[in-house]
Order: sequence, then structure tokens, then C-alpha cells
Amino acid sequence: MSNEITSLITDTPEERYQLAVQLSRKAISTILPDPESRKKMYPEYIGDARNIAHASEVVAIHFHTISQANDFWKDK
Amino acid sequence: MSNEITSLITDTPEERYQLAVQLSRKAISTILPDPESRKKMYPEYIGDARNIAHASEVVAIHFHTISQANDFWKDK
Amino acid sequence: MSNEITSLITDTPEERYQLAVQLSRKAISTILPDPESRKKMYPEYIGDARNIAHASEVVAIHFHTISQANDFWKDK
Amino acid sequence: MSNEITSLITDTPEERYQLAVQLSRKAISTILPDPESRKKMYPEYIGDARNIAHASEVVAIHFHTISQANDFWKDK
Amino acid sequence: MSNEITSLITDTPEERYQLAVQLSRKAISTILPDPESRKKMYPEYIGDARNIAHASEVVAIHFHTISQANDFWKDK
Amino acid sequence: MSNEITSLITDTPEERYQLAVQLSRKAISTILPDPESRKKMYPEYIGDARNIAHASEVVAIHFHTISQANDFWKDK
Repeated sequence: MSNEITSLITDTPEERYQLAVQLSRKAISTILPDPESRKKMYPEYIGDARNIAHASEVVAIHFHTISQANDFWKDK
Repeated sequence: MSNEITSLITDTPEERYQLAVQLSRKAISTILPDPESRKKMYPEYIGDARNIAHASEVVAIHFHTISQANDFWKDK
Repeated sequence: MSNEITSLITDTPEERYQLAVQLSRKAISTILPDPESRKKMYPEYIGDARNIAHASEVVAIHFHTISQANDFWKDK
Repeated sequence: MSNEITSLITDTPEERYQLAVQLSRKAISTILPDPESRKKMYPEYIGDARNIAHASEVVAIHFHTISQANDFWKDK
Repeated sequence: MSNEITSLITDTPEERYQLAVQLSRKAISTILPDPESRKKMYPEYIGDARNIAHASEVVAIHFHTISQANDFWKDK
Repeated sequence: MSNEITSLITDTPEERYQLAVQLSRKAISTILPDPESRKKMYPEYIGDARNIAHASEVVAIHFHTISQANDFWKDK
């Protein structure tokens, strides 16, 4: 599975944020497994400001989970 | 109950994510128990980008719960 | 009060999930106490895919609360 | 202040849930302090199934806060 | 900065709730820094029941953060 | 990366809040990497009161994460 999640433990700050985005996108490919359906929906999804607002919320929830997993990187 | 939840403790990363998706879908079959109603609503549900954004948020909340249940897999 | 909540501590997995659904529905009967108003709104509520997505989110939040209350059933 | 919050510590289960509803409603009277504006908006608010879904989410978030405040009533 | 946040530690219950409302409003003045744009949007914002529902959710999330910051005022 | 996140540990209250706003905006530039697309969407995004309500929710979720990372600044 190309977008398989192997761990929530990450090193660099950028990795954490990108993992949150990966986790958000993984739901969409799981909910809508057919690539053609996703391709067809993408313009509507990315062109609607309300979806962008909602997608950033999903990233925020995953970023919170990853931050907790990494004890908020207090030691770094 | 086929989609009965027996435990939040999982092993592989993929299992965790799939359990989050299962928990999300379980609400829909609980809220809308009639299979015919679900079948009728499915095209509208899956064809609306805003629902996909919302469904990925529900997966994110469940994924947070499962991550906490598994102490964020720090030991794995 | 028929849908009175007596405890968040539950045994079987199914009970937990059903308690989360009960907690979600309890808000609706508290916000809209008049049974006739609820009956009138039900078809609109249950027929709108976006409400179903939102209702599954409310179940997810309550399921997280109940999971924390039961220490995520780590000992079971 | 009639709807002043004095404590998050409650005894009976019903009290907890009612406090969550009170906390949810308090935001509305704080955001929309003018009683006439609230009275005018109430039919639109209560008549829209999506608002009811959203209000039940707000209750769920407050119920989580109150549950944490009361250590999930594990000792009761 | 008039609406600068100096601390999450508060004394009276009312202060906590008002701080949550202040934190919610602060995002709007940060996202929409131009006072004229905010003034122009205010009638649309305050006149839409769905925004009021959403604003009360934002207050609920901040109230949870402040409650955690104050250990849920268990000692008061 | 100009908006790279180096740490969640901040000093002044204002920094915390601005970091939450930065984290919220970072998702948008990650989800919509093309600056032209973002520029085109900005008027629709900023002109829709519902997006402003949603954006303030995303800030609230990040502010909660940052607050936890800084132990709610109890020692300051």
C-alpha cells in the first residue's frame, strides 16, 4: 500500500505536517477507492473554498494526534 | 453483528486506519439502519465533495481515539 | 427520564458504540423537546446526506469521550 | 447573570448533560446578546436540520469537557 | 494589542467563558484584519443561524482548552 | 520552506495564537500549492462568512494543540 502509515513518530517538523496531510488524504482514497471517481470529483473538491476550509480542519485534527504521539516534540 | 467492534487495540498501522473507517461507517448504518435507504442515499453521499471532506474528518476523530487507545504505538 | 444517562462505564464494545449514539440523539430531544417538531423534521434530517455525515461526527466525539472514560478498554 | 457557570463538577448524569446544553446555549446568548435578534432567528435556527446536527456536536464537545472535569464519573 | 491573550489561567467561571469567546473572535480579526471588511461582513455573519451554530462550536473548543489549562477548576 | 514549523514551544501569548493561525494557513498552501489557484480562490474564501467561521475553528484546534505542547503556560 503506497500510502500505508508505518508510524506516527516523526523527526522534522515538516514531516509531521506532511504526515497529517497524508492521513487526511488517505481517508479520501479509502472512502472513494475508485481513482476515476476521485479524478472526476477533484476539480469540484479543490475549487470549493468550503472544502479547503474543511480539509484544513482535518489536517488540524491529525496534526493534534501526531503532536500527542511525539509528546509535542518538547525534547527537540 | 458483522461490524461489531471487539477492541480498539490493533497491531499494524493499516489496521488502525481501517478500524477508524469502520467506526465512521458504523455510525451511518446505526443512524440509517434500513439498507434500502442507505443504498438510495449512497450516490448523493459519495458524489458530494463536502460529504467526502466531512467523512474524512470523522475518520480523523476516530483515528485520534484509536491512537490514544494504542498509546500512539510509541513502542512499535 | 427514559434516555437518562446513568454511567459512561460500559462492558461490551457494542454497548459503548450504542451509548455514543444515544448521547448524540439525546441532544436532539433536548434541543427540540417537542415530539411533533422532531417527527416533522425527521424526514428532512434523515434524508440529507450532509446531516448523516454530521451525525456520524457527533457519534465519533461521544465515542472518544466514552473510550477515555473506559481507559480505551485496554484491560479487556 | 442567570446562566452563569459556577462549576463543571456535577453529581447526577442528567445534570452533566444539561450543563453541556447550557454551555452550548450560553455561547449563542453571548454571540447574539440582543434578545430580539435571538427571538427573530430562533425559528430559522430550530427549523433547520443542519443546525440541529451542529448544535448536537457543540453539546458533544462540552459533554467531553465536563466528563474530563468529573474524571468521567469513574468513582460513581 | 487590545485583544492580546496574556494567560489561559482565569478565576471566575464567567471569565473563562468570556476568554473562550475572546479567543474565538480573535481569530476573525486575525483572519480578516481590515475593520471595514469585518464591518461589511458582520450582518451576513450574525444573521446566518448556521454561523451562530459554528461560532458556538469554536467557543466550545476554546472552552475545553481553557478548562484543561485550569485543571477544570476542580479545586475551586 | 518559509512557513516551515520548527517548534510548537512558544513564549509570548501572541506568538502562540499567531502560530495557530500559521498552522491553519499552512494546510491551505499544502492542499492548494499553486499560488495562482490560491489567489483566484481568496476573494471567495475571505468573502464567505461561513469560511471565516470554519477558519476560526481550525485556529481553535491548533491553539489547543499548541496549548497542550506548552503545558498551557501554567508556569508563566
